[in-house]
Amino acid sequence: MAELHLLSPAGFRASGVYAGIKQKQVPDVGLLVCDTPAAAAAVFTTNRVVAAPVTIGARHIARGRLRGIVVNSGNANACTGRQGEKDAIRMCLLAARTINARTAEFLPSSTGIIGHMLPMHFVERGIIEAGHYLGRSQEQAQLFADAILTTDLRRKSAATTFKLGKQTIHLAGVCKGSGMIGPRMKAHGSALDRSKHATMLAYLTTDARISPVLLRKMLQQATDDSFNAVTIDDHTSTNDTAAILASGASGAKIDIARATKYFADALTEVCQSLAYQIAADGEGATKVVTITVRSARTTEDARTIARTIANSPLVKTAMHGNDPNWGRIVSAAGYAGVAFDSDKCILTLQDTIVFRAGRPVSFDVEKLSRNLQAPEVTIDLQCRQGKSTATAWTCDLSREYITINADYHT
Amino acid sequence: MAELHLLSPAGFRASGVYAGIKQKQVPDVGLLVCDTPAAAAAVFTTNRVVAAPVTIGARHIARGRLRGIVVNSGNANACTGRQGEKDAIRMCLLAARTINARTAEFLPSSTGIIGHMLPMHFVERGIIEAGHYLGRSQEQAQLFADAILTTDLRRKSAATTFKLGKQTIHLAGVCKGSGMIGPRMKAHGSALDRSKHATMLAYLTTDARISPVLLRKMLQQATDDSFNAVTIDDHTSTNDTAAILASGASGAKIDIARATKYFADALTEVCQSLAYQIAADGEGATKVVTITVRSARTTEDARTIARTIANSPLVKTAMHGNDPNWGRIVSAAGYAGVAFDSDKCILTLQDTIVFRAGRPVSFDVEKLSRNLQAPEVTIDLQCRQGKSTATAWTCDLSREYITINADYHT
Repeated sequence: MAELHLLSPAGFRASGVYAGIKQKQVPDVGLLVCDTPAAAAAVFTTNRVVAAPVTIGARHIARGRLRGIVVNSGNANACTGRQGEKDAIRMCLLAARTINARTAEFLPSSTGIIGHMLPMHFVERGIIEAGHYLGRSQEQAQLFADAILTTDLRRKSAATTFKLGKQTIHLAGVCKGSGMIGPRMKAHGSALDRSKHATMLAYLTTDARISPVLLRKMLQQATDDSFNAVTIDDHTSTNDTAAILASGASGAKIDIARATKYFADALTEVCQSLAYQIAADGEGATKVVTITVRSARTTEDARTIARTIANSPLVKTAMHGNDPNWGRIVSAAGYAGVAFDSDKCILTLQDTIVFRAGRPVSFDVEKLSRNLQAPEVTIDLQCRQGKSTATAWTCDLSREYITINADYHT
Repeated sequence: MAELHLLSPAGFRASGVYAGIKQKQVPDVGLLVCDTPAAAAAVFTTNRVVAAPVTIGARHIARGRLRGIVVNSGNANACTGRQGEKDAIRMCLLAARTINARTAEFLPSSTGIIGHMLPMHFVERGIIEAGHYLGRSQEQAQLFADAILTTDLRRKSAATTFKLGKQTIHLAGVCKGSGMIGPRMKAHGSALDRSKHATMLAYLTTDARISPVLLRKMLQQATDDSFNAVTIDDHTSTNDTAAILASGASGAKIDIARATKYFADALTEVCQSLAYQIAADGEGATKVVTITVRSARTTEDARTIARTIANSPLVKTAMHGNDPNWGRIVSAAGYAGVAFDSDKCILTLQDTIVFRAGRPVSFDVEKLSRNLQAPEVTIDLQCRQGKSTATAWTCDLSREYITINADYHT
């Protein structure tokens, strides 16, 4: 069986080209288009400083229909004023021309350095060229996935299928993100809440038939359990965007409860795989740290505690040093600002209980330290205050993170 | 004129001894005592996981009178259950015995690793010995200051005097803090609020005559403008404590408005000097970064924005790399979660305007990068949305921070 990819769902074409925005000769402009007006939904950064493509994208997605996505890497088009917005609109205009669509049927995205005007000469040439190379092959899906990367070391992609009766529905996605990662994305127009987190971009495709309203609701739920639960450095970008296009080409309609549940599960599965890949490819990462908080009072409490642990530089450096210094984990849970009682909790580190009910538990420090020398580390915290669970993903904090970010010069 | 120090205010004695808690032979138990029952106030961590000495200390300070402070370094006595509380009380009992005071007249503090029982054999011997060595000399003040240090590279001390009529009032303090720094301290019993920040300890002395209620109010105000505005890694400790003892030995009474203002200004000056010393001695620091947010809508907004910028690993690594990557600063202000409009703001980095009213400003990147190669860097953000100002202090984020914290083994 052929490997599933972004273009496995019927009705989509994509491409990625080198336009000259990046110094290195790798793809930096990508196009993803749907053969028909797709049902579409997107969530965006809750940063109050919003990049031009997010402003324009939020406007274009409002109708719930898109023909495609146009994206560049190497420049974020953020803090670029009115001219930046004009450039983002022009990106859409040129992309739309390649398939005879309208400007407002495209969502633009950009990622890269903040505060520099887009080199439109290169961008324009790139979009026109990308239009020529649109296709349905796995290679074209990969070129699109490559075109959105910045400091990422690896291409990120996930896909799944599920059956509704005799029909097979495909769901797939690609994403980017390595630094400035700590998204908290919301559909614009919905209430902004605490925004404490970074650029990640994710684009999803499906051939299901689904209404834009239901699609938006499910994208928000899946995002909260995936992208909004991954953090590298807790720095929310001005550009974070996750968007999904549903072509309807499979003919399978998502409306009744059972279909909705299947679709939601598949979407969450793909988004979680992508979020995990972001954590694994975090700047300087040598390992992924998965933090699961159980039996919290509420889901929001569980998420807040998991995320606070994930963001502590002291926890992240301890994991880097294979140090079972669990006091850093418990104290991070304590300053999360939500209900937490160390006298009740049980903390398990890589399957070893280290703290229970307010008191240390004796364990073999050297053995646990050896177990922490793994590409995947799990922190499991039972709060014993309720019934809610949440998971957050991060990576360790290494000298390499400093090297990458102290030397990524303006 | 002799140099001012912790024991310059009349009525105090101190000492510091090596008891054997730390591996390295440096002072690890300290005593600070007042000749008479001092008016006293303290603020403590808002972490929900609270070390035993904080629980006991909050109880002992409730009456507003203390005879002294007993402190150990090398072990935090946190996550140690009932036994931990008994040990903290025993520390007070032994300290009180050295000057014929009562157990409840002492405030205990501990700093060091979390989750290990205090080695009481050493601690007890240390306190008894410290009682023998109590004295009023600068050397004894320094030994006490040394006894509270952990990963700190430098002793931290500040002092000032001011005149009320013909009387001179002395105010002095010492502190510790280098990692797990991001305090948000409150008087216990007052409302806890967002607690997002680390162990720092600070002890202040004055010979002013002042009521405990007024002292507590002024300590909270000074703390908000100093200790609560310094962050190294945004990890709030379970042990953060700042306490002040007023002996009254000068005879000068702080009650009328003018005296209160003088005292508040002197207290803030000493606390800010100590906070600055913490930032300068942050783990791995090569420079202090001072972030001033001006013309914000409210003081709370200004503090939140300043602190969010101070906590961004991307801002801190850029400062380490002498990189004027101002997009990281503006985007951090944007995710602070309070009112901020990049179209209005003016950002000045080391006296060079880099961003104004939503658009980049052209500047000499290489010259500014050279100017950033300094032991002190200033970030100045005018919001132009109101009249409030706040300052936060932090340091850059270096490979050395990783080395210290990945290798500080359990």
